[in-house]
Amino acid sequence: MSSTQMTFPDRAAHRAWLAGQSALPAGFRVGSSRFEFMPAEAPKPARMTLTLIALDRPSADFAAVFTRNAFPGAPVLVGRGRLSAPALGAVVVNNKISNVCAPGGVEAAERVCAEAGRLLGFEPSAVLPSSTGVIGWRLPVGAMLSALPAAVASLAPGSVLPAAEGIVTTDLYPKVRRAALVGGSIVGIAKGAGMIEPNMATMLVYLLTDLAVPRADMRRMLSEAVETSFNSISVDSDTSTSDTVALLSSGRVPCPDRAVFALALLAVCRDLAEDVVRNGEGVRHVIRVSVSGAPDFPSARALGKAIVNAPLLKCAVAGNDPNVGRLVQAIGKHVGSQAPSLDVSRLRMTLGGIEIFSGGAFRLDPSKESALVAHMRAAELYASRPPRDGVFSPPIDFPPHERCVEIGVDLGHAGGAGAVVLGADLTHEYVSENADYRS
Amino acid sequence: MSSTQMTFPDRAAHRAWLAGQSALPAGFRVGSSRFEFMPAEAPKPARMTLTLIALDRPSADFAAVFTRNAFPGAPVLVGRGRLSAPALGAVVVNNKISNVCAPGGVEAAERVCAEAGRLLGFEPSAVLPSSTGVIGWRLPVGAMLSALPAAVASLAPGSVLPAAEGIVTTDLYPKVRRAALVGGSIVGIAKGAGMIEPNMATMLVYLLTDLAVPRADMRRMLSEAVETSFNSISVDSDTSTSDTVALLSSGRVPCPDRAVFALALLAVCRDLAEDVVRNGEGVRHVIRVSVSGAPDFPSARALGKAIVNAPLLKCAVAGNDPNVGRLVQAIGKHVGSQAPSLDVSRLRMTLGGIEIFSGGAFRLDPSKESALVAHMRAAELYASRPPRDGVFSPPIDFPPHERCVEIGVDLGHAGGAGAVVLGADLTHEYVSENADYRS
Repeated sequence: MSSTQMTFPDRAAHRAWLAGQSALPAGFRVGSSRFEFMPAEAPKPARMTLTLIALDRPSADFAAVFTRNAFPGAPVLVGRGRLSAPALGAVVVNNKISNVCAPGGVEAAERVCAEAGRLLGFEPSAVLPSSTGVIGWRLPVGAMLSALPAAVASLAPGSVLPAAEGIVTTDLYPKVRRAALVGGSIVGIAKGAGMIEPNMATMLVYLLTDLAVPRADMRRMLSEAVETSFNSISVDSDTSTSDTVALLSSGRVPCPDRAVFALALLAVCRDLAEDVVRNGEGVRHVIRVSVSGAPDFPSARALGKAIVNAPLLKCAVAGNDPNVGRLVQAIGKHVGSQAPSLDVSRLRMTLGGIEIFSGGAFRLDPSKESALVAHMRAAELYASRPPRDGVFSPPIDFPPHERCVEIGVDLGHAGGAGAVVLGADLTHEYVSENADYRS
Repeated sequence: MSSTQMTFPDRAAHRAWLAGQSALPAGFRVGSSRFEFMPAEAPKPARMTLTLIALDRPSADFAAVFTRNAFPGAPVLVGRGRLSAPALGAVVVNNKISNVCAPGGVEAAERVCAEAGRLLGFEPSAVLPSSTGVIGWRLPVGAMLSALPAAVASLAPGSVLPAAEGIVTTDLYPKVRRAALVGGSIVGIAKGAGMIEPNMATMLVYLLTDLAVPRADMRRMLSEAVETSFNSISVDSDTSTSDTVALLSSGRVPCPDRAVFALALLAVCRDLAEDVVRNGEGVRHVIRVSVSGAPDFPSARALGKAIVNAPLLKCAVAGNDPNVGRLVQAIGKHVGSQAPSLDVSRLRMTLGGIEIFSGGAFRLDPSKESALVAHMRAAELYASRPPRDGVFSPPIDFPPHERCVEIGVDLGHAGGAGAVVLGADLTHEYVSENADYRS
């Protein structure tokens, strides 16, 4: 999806590119504060970063979409209420604890917002709260209120990078994407490594622009952009209780062409979504499934999701194993149980552009195998190394390239619809991240 | 689900117990033959075991249920046709290649059936084919026809164990369950370690009885028994293209009480289903989710499946980590996306019998934590050991105990329905089995 496919020889090259992406739009400042606290539910101290994103003055033009999980976190409950507030002036984000199903969670989020608002000179309802981390634990409100003045004092214009670095948990590197257009810009940052917490992960995305677009238009554009970006990816099929994508405008620059704004917004969202998958927990290969010839977009996307979420296919990709039987299994499972009316009689599949299935049967031979393996190896982000203590950990802190394992699934429906879904492999590094450490 | 919870101190004790379960009902013989062949799709030779289960004479009283995967294997296509055959006299099972979406697959299965029938003196339509293993490869028909006479020559009454051992692939040990009733018996064998192949796995179950139950009754009873046994388990959420459960009767013993037969059949199916999970690929903990207070059985089972299939919860269980936030995430994900009408406002949850969630919030404190960890540790089947080469492999070839990680989910619906779903953790051993070896 990335508009230009980049490669980075080392961390310094990636950091230099990030710095170039990070120019804050006019009217925004960011800052953060890091501190230690004692959780009420666990016996040992923990560390938290409080990140602030602030407008110079609250703006009526903002939009946000939230998780569909039936147990949304307190910040999501508060955030849904903020959609009807007259204006938004700041976002306060904490990592380490997601404030989900914790006793008194909404009150805790509101207290943090009220204090941040007081320090910034804004109404409490002008502050959007976001939290990511352990589900079920209570926010350390006292420690957070004590840390807020330092976060406010650190607010600075210029670069969004301090915020992109402040909101991360298990992420290996910060994620920033930028589009410049018609005299202004859209800059987005994301955190997210698994769809959901534990050793803390949640997808949070903040999109900042100085282009003046009315609230109603922003909300429609954001909802549309999310469908083919963040709602078309899956690292591990688990849906966070805290997912949030928020778009804020300072309105400093007139926007003469809203269609161009919508396109730029979509490009930033898709690039960030791809970044989230590429930096997913333990991800060693990004899988891009391009479904075509389907009756409509929802059925195409659902099929793509079923493919990227099939554990055995994910394991095969991790092992650079072109075990294409697992691919047809995943399609057949989805169609058999979820989409019985989907016609698969004209199915044609490719892997790395090589035809592997047509006319109801596989088209395999030993000579194709080496080409398929080579395609998968080329998409590998790093080599997995068995560690001495059995705890696998990705040896990179930057994305060396943006290549994907490319799977094509054509249902052969004339004039049909399509969808592009991004997913990831299932690796020892993922299991180590989520089983070998205690939360 | 297992009627009696057993422990086995070592492999010898498990084998002795298996031998006691294995007495063949009257009228059955089993045999097998193992051979090497060269696959058409791969550059190196492979080994296959051909297993025969034979009645002394074909019987009209048989039943079978098959996978709902939309790409069923050729043996499943042939097997569905056999349901209308006048009688069934034998099952011929091969491992290594599942004969799914392979060119000429149905013809290959029929040729093997015809030759087995000729050697046994039965019609070709009296032989049910079953295959498990790599998807997409073609059966080595010539080598299989050459091996059939040895398999027929080895047919013997007495014990089902040679068949239980012949059909396995990545299974760690054979699986046999038996019920004795009203002068006869039901004996079942199962293979299955992942829902689907890879290094070959598929769930195949054969249930043999000497009790005379008419075909129509058998089919109804089998369909009912499958719903709360094999259709209520998941090792990895992947649905095989070859799943088959077949029930054959020799009719040697009159069955005076069909209700008792149905109960015994259900018990054998549930015990075998639990065996399949316990011996699932890489499984270190069996997870038993008991859903209660639900509006109906299908919604209760769907919720249970969503819980046991949530990758992050599975990882937490692998690590003996009572990360209960991942549990509420899994429920919220399912309700939010699949079952929006399900009322979760009265949700109460237990882990190992200990209340962890009620009244809309978690009930956690540091002192509960050690009890939860102890419960999970007690359900561990083996200790994972980091291997020198990074390829993890379960160090057991018998089930040391039958304890589960017990999760209780009560939706609080008065007079509600329930379901029990069995699943498993997600371990390094699973990833090694499916990513570290090439198929």
